[in-house]
Amino acid sequence: MQMIDNSLRTTNGPPIPSSSSSSSSLSSQQPTPPSIMTILLRLYKIFLWITQISRLTILLMKTLAGPLCAAIRPGRKKNVENKVVLITGAGSGLGREMAIKFAECGAITILWDINETTVKQTAEMIEEIVNSIHYHYHHNSSKQLTSWSVVDVGDENQVAQAAQKLRNQFGDVDILVNNAGIAPCEPFKNLKSEKIREIFDVNIMAHFWTVKQFLPAMEKNNSGHIVAIASSAGIMGSPYFTAYGASKHAVVGFMKCLYEELDENSQIRLTTVCPLGISGTGIDIPTKTRFPWLLPVMPLEYAVGLIFDAILREEELFVVPKTFKWIHRLLSIFPQKMASTIWKCLDYSVVPTGLYAPIGRAHYHDRIYRKLSLANGYVHHNNHHHHGSTHQHGQTNQINNNNNHHHSSSPSSSNLSSSSPPHRPSRSSSFRY
Amino acid sequence: MQMIDNSLRTTNGPPIPSSSSSSSSLSSQQPTPPSIMTILLRLYKIFLWITQISRLTILLMKTLAGPLCAAIRPGRKKNVENKVVLITGAGSGLGREMAIKFAECGAITILWDINETTVKQTAEMIEEIVNSIHYHYHHNSSKQLTSWSVVDVGDENQVAQAAQKLRNQFGDVDILVNNAGIAPCEPFKNLKSEKIREIFDVNIMAHFWTVKQFLPAMEKNNSGHIVAIASSAGIMGSPYFTAYGASKHAVVGFMKCLYEELDENSQIRLTTVCPLGISGTGIDIPTKTRFPWLLPVMPLEYAVGLIFDAILREEELFVVPKTFKWIHRLLSIFPQKMASTIWKCLDYSVVPTGLYAPIGRAHYHDRIYRKLSLANGYVHHNNHHHHGSTHQHGQTNQINNNNNHHHSSSPSSSNLSSSSPPHRPSRSSSFRY
Repeated sequence: MQMIDNSLRTTNGPPIPSSSSSSSSLSSQQPTPPSIMTILLRLYKIFLWITQISRLTILLMKTLAGPLCAAIRPGRKKNVENKVVLITGAGSGLGREMAIKFAECGAITILWDINETTVKQTAEMIEEIVNSIHYHYHHNSSKQLTSWSVVDVGDENQVAQAAQKLRNQFGDVDILVNNAGIAPCEPFKNLKSEKIREIFDVNIMAHFWTVKQFLPAMEKNNSGHIVAIASSAGIMGSPYFTAYGASKHAVVGFMKCLYEELDENSQIRLTTVCPLGISGTGIDIPTKTRFPWLLPVMPLEYAVGLIFDAILREEELFVVPKTFKWIHRLLSIFPQKMASTIWKCLDYSVVPTGLYAPIGRAHYHDRIYRKLSLANGYVHHNNHHHHGSTHQHGQTNQINNNNNHHHSSSPSSSNLSSSSPPHRPSRSSSFRY
Repeated sequence: MQMIDNSLRTTNGPPIPSSSSSSSSLSSQQPTPPSIMTILLRLYKIFLWITQISRLTILLMKTLAGPLCAAIRPGRKKNVENKVVLITGAGSGLGREMAIKFAECGAITILWDINETTVKQTAEMIEEIVNSIHYHYHHNSSKQLTSWSVVDVGDENQVAQAAQKLRNQFGDVDILVNNAGIAPCEPFKNLKSEKIREIFDVNIMAHFWTVKQFLPAMEKNNSGHIVAIASSAGIMGSPYFTAYGASKHAVVGFMKCLYEELDENSQIRLTTVCPLGISGTGIDIPTKTRFPWLLPVMPLEYAVGLIFDAILREEELFVVPKTFKWIHRLLSIFPQKMASTIWKCLDYSVVPTGLYAPIGRAHYHDRIYRKLSLANGYVHHNNHHHHGSTHQHGQTNQINNNNNHHHSSSPSSSNLSSSSPPHRPSRSSSFRY
């Protein structure tokens, strides 16, 4: 039996020196012809391997088929007509624009935001759209096609209550867009503990609370779509974004783990979006880009258009702009130090709020780039026309979980959201992309 | 001026169609010889480009020099003699073994853990070592060389108090090892909200609280080393690890962002450790590996040896085993779906606690593998000898921040730590690696 054991193992790797003296005495003997039992076991082993390798081949071909079909027929998008779509942080920026896109396609949009004023504005915009396209999509409908709630997504209780209300009114959610987020951009040493907790509550914990509410029904129906708006900071390191970057990495990790956990044949789709630099989202962080043709600061509408298409195509991980996607993939092969150096030469970064004298690694390059900026004109500040320049989508407005004085406790965040434009920019604004 | 503007931009990318009619009329005219001003600006532009490219080349060569030197002289390790080393979660598993390694090299070890019994045991082990090597390293010293505290690292106040005590007694921390972590392995739908919060408090928030305490002194002294024990789940998706994976992704993200934020010439070192599968860390999650020769479940001491060496070599990102590092890098180039399929065929995964009927994607493979497991014998359960099999380091035992009844509120975690062996396994145990 000892010999059979050894012969089995050798097919997997080098033979293991056995501690028992009986086997060592066996191996020192003359080679004996293998017994029928051994041969049969070996054949069985080979059969198993063939099975496994063919299964792997089939699985890989099946996996390849999807992207190949998509490449041949890129226009294939899913229909969201009459689907129930929940968008968090829908009061401004990316959330508002996405809500409008969904409404334009005939979806039933449910808007959540912590800021009552801005979410109401979005709802009003959508009602206008709904009224104008009403006869195209919903001939017979007298039912409500949009709804808004003031929800602090970082607070599990508020999420649970709003979710219950939503289910009573509209039934199960078909598409959950976890978009709400805050993007404080500060050097690590300036980050207050409360701020760190707030970032985690809004940017990642909220995903757990909403998915907990809506995934069970999706699993029951074996359909649904969960979208997470992460960030470029969720797949790479960015200075001044320690807490934000950590929380966005967590979002990417959460979605990856959830993807692995879902059933192989599950019809539930997951989409993680990692955009690099969108301007005009309502948070005032200046972004500088050295090669705008390579890594542009995308205007909000352009970015939302791309992201919305990716959602309809049900992409798993959508990194935008495409150039960033490839640069990131390329850099991920290099050691961290080299990748960091190359990325710094591309010099796409944010200028932290309230930081008058730049510090850290970024400073090293800042000195040179500041000299050049006049000649090249590549430093975009948020007061420039339409380069409203925030590194992030980042909508809205959140307060700490432990704090009971919700709205009064976050003057800065309410400032942020109130500073976002009440009316969306006209579609004719001319950007070159 | 319009023309100059255009000529400047064309070097950066395609010419921008200007909306003003004056420039379009210019371009339709016969080409006029460029003015001296234009030529000078162009030359200046070219000069700037040459400067930038040479700077990039020098930077890359400088960056390459380090790894090249390390490859030629791989034995170069830093000296930790008499350095003040703080290790969190030092009561068991990876933390205990690392503490012992540091003590053996003559470092002053400060042990933090939430579990008084186990951290005391570690301290006793270290005292023995210190006494035996006392005459080698510390001829003249009558000073204390180790110390332990009961600290819940997820609680900022406890961290701050313990840090103050530490500074009074030993001065600044030279090496901070953020090791404490918990690894509940459960399907998403079974995860309790309290558990999710606990995971984030111990696994990532603790890093903020400790780094906040000790980074300022490191920056002042321009020396120091911060080590984060993340996980393979911090760089890839794993089923049944949604919260754990998210928190570990956050650790990796935090360290990456901190790295980018530190000054270019900073002497502070950062090391992020991502191990895949270590057995014998005291948490009872069975791990199965299909190709042990490719992706082994590493015994604790072997893993700690590698990790300790990487810390002394000051590596930025240490992924272990090496095979996993290369498989992960390779897979990161593929689309998520394909990478996931290939990874699943390698079948390295954990069996979640309390999950009697496996669900999800993992199940698909589980069915086949369960059939094969008898023939191949590759399913390692934690009751096997020395394949104590946890996916993760994961020491300690933590309780929720918001809960005041600290120790009584976490029966499961105290169970975990009490189940860890009180005495470390003898060094002579024979593993083949």
